[in-house]
Amino acid sequence: MKALKERIIADGVAIGTEIVKVDSFLNHQIDVAFLDEIGQEFAKRFRGMEISKILTVEASGIAIACITAKYFGNIPVLFAKKASPNTMTEDFYNAEVKSFTKGTVSIVRVSKKFLSPDDRVLILDDFLAHGEAAHGMADLIRQAGAKIAGIGAVIEKQFQGGGKRLREKGFLVESLAVIESIQNGKINFLK
Amino acid sequence: MKALKERIIADGVAIGTEIVKVDSFLNHQIDVAFLDEIGQEFAKRFRGMEISKILTVEASGIAIACITAKYFGNIPVLFAKKASPNTMTEDFYNAEVKSFTKGTVSIVRVSKKFLSPDDRVLILDDFLAHGEAAHGMADLIRQAGAKIAGIGAVIEKQFQGGGKRLREKGFLVESLAVIESIQNGKINFLK
Repeated sequence: MKALKERIIADGVAIGTEIVKVDSFLNHQIDVAFLDEIGQEFAKRFRGMEISKILTVEASGIAIACITAKYFGNIPVLFAKKASPNTMTEDFYNAEVKSFTKGTVSIVRVSKKFLSPDDRVLILDDFLAHGEAAHGMADLIRQAGAKIAGIGAVIEKQFQGGGKRLREKGFLVESLAVIESIQNGKINFLK
Repeated sequence: MKALKERIIADGVAIGTEIVKVDSFLNHQIDVAFLDEIGQEFAKRFRGMEISKILTVEASGIAIACITAKYFGNIPVLFAKKASPNTMTEDFYNAEVKSFTKGTVSIVRVSKKFLSPDDRVLILDDFLAHGEAAHGMADLIRQAGAKIAGIGAVIEKQFQGGGKRLREKGFLVESLAVIESIQNGKINFLK
């Protein structure tokens, strides 16, 4: 997605060789008009796949999933939670997710009542790095007996291997911008 | 907001005398078409106030803020973060927030570069209970020298007093549904 690459070049900040900060428009401050373009692009990439629900994980994925849902006929968005507040009393599907940015392992969970075997679920997130969050979400969907329609990421960091591993497992993975490497403050995209 | 009260009665679950679960449409699974109506209602309530930015706090507020932003001319959304991943390297405004549902105190923070004295900020969140999150966000905005245009909540639990305390401090508070009490599994709205 050309406009996204241009935006990353204009506003993204490369840190070391592994991190690109896009907190000015994607995951801290959010440019909702630009997210709308991102949502339309996801709808194009996953067109005709009879997706019934979008699954993401808190917090950064929520904005992307909600704005994208409009272009899938306002299907429900479900966001996996990382914590368990005392208002969550019913049964959950649980999966482990390592966080690359935080260096921790957390549990993500969704209430069992919101995923059913009839669902065809699109997994969406801001970044696809090592693929841990996507694997965790796929695990939640499998536990529910639902179908995984595909995995969409706004930005894939190819050099961290998550996309490759997910594609090798047979998942349809669509990333709107694919970063090949980050070197000397420069972000190099896959041609 | 009549449609919201009806939805809470239809799909909300009262737990004890303090908690209403609305996880089927607002803060776990999200009904984006319904959120669109909520966004339009917030736009009506805060019309003409020259709001330049919406501030919310992760995670449940993000969907509401992003869908509402469309009705304020796609102004930027900023969501305060509860954690500090190692990608956040610059300076932050910090504020303490007690969590009613989790029984914890956390720090919420926003990057200094995304709030300026020129901003007129609308605070949005899913619930207004004891008002701790709203106070924390107001504190972040004050630290930036920005203006607080108002505070919007989808659901106010009046009996927990947060709305009253915020209004007494002079804030304009708009809640789309106000719950007076929860008794014997019944949710009683303010007339």
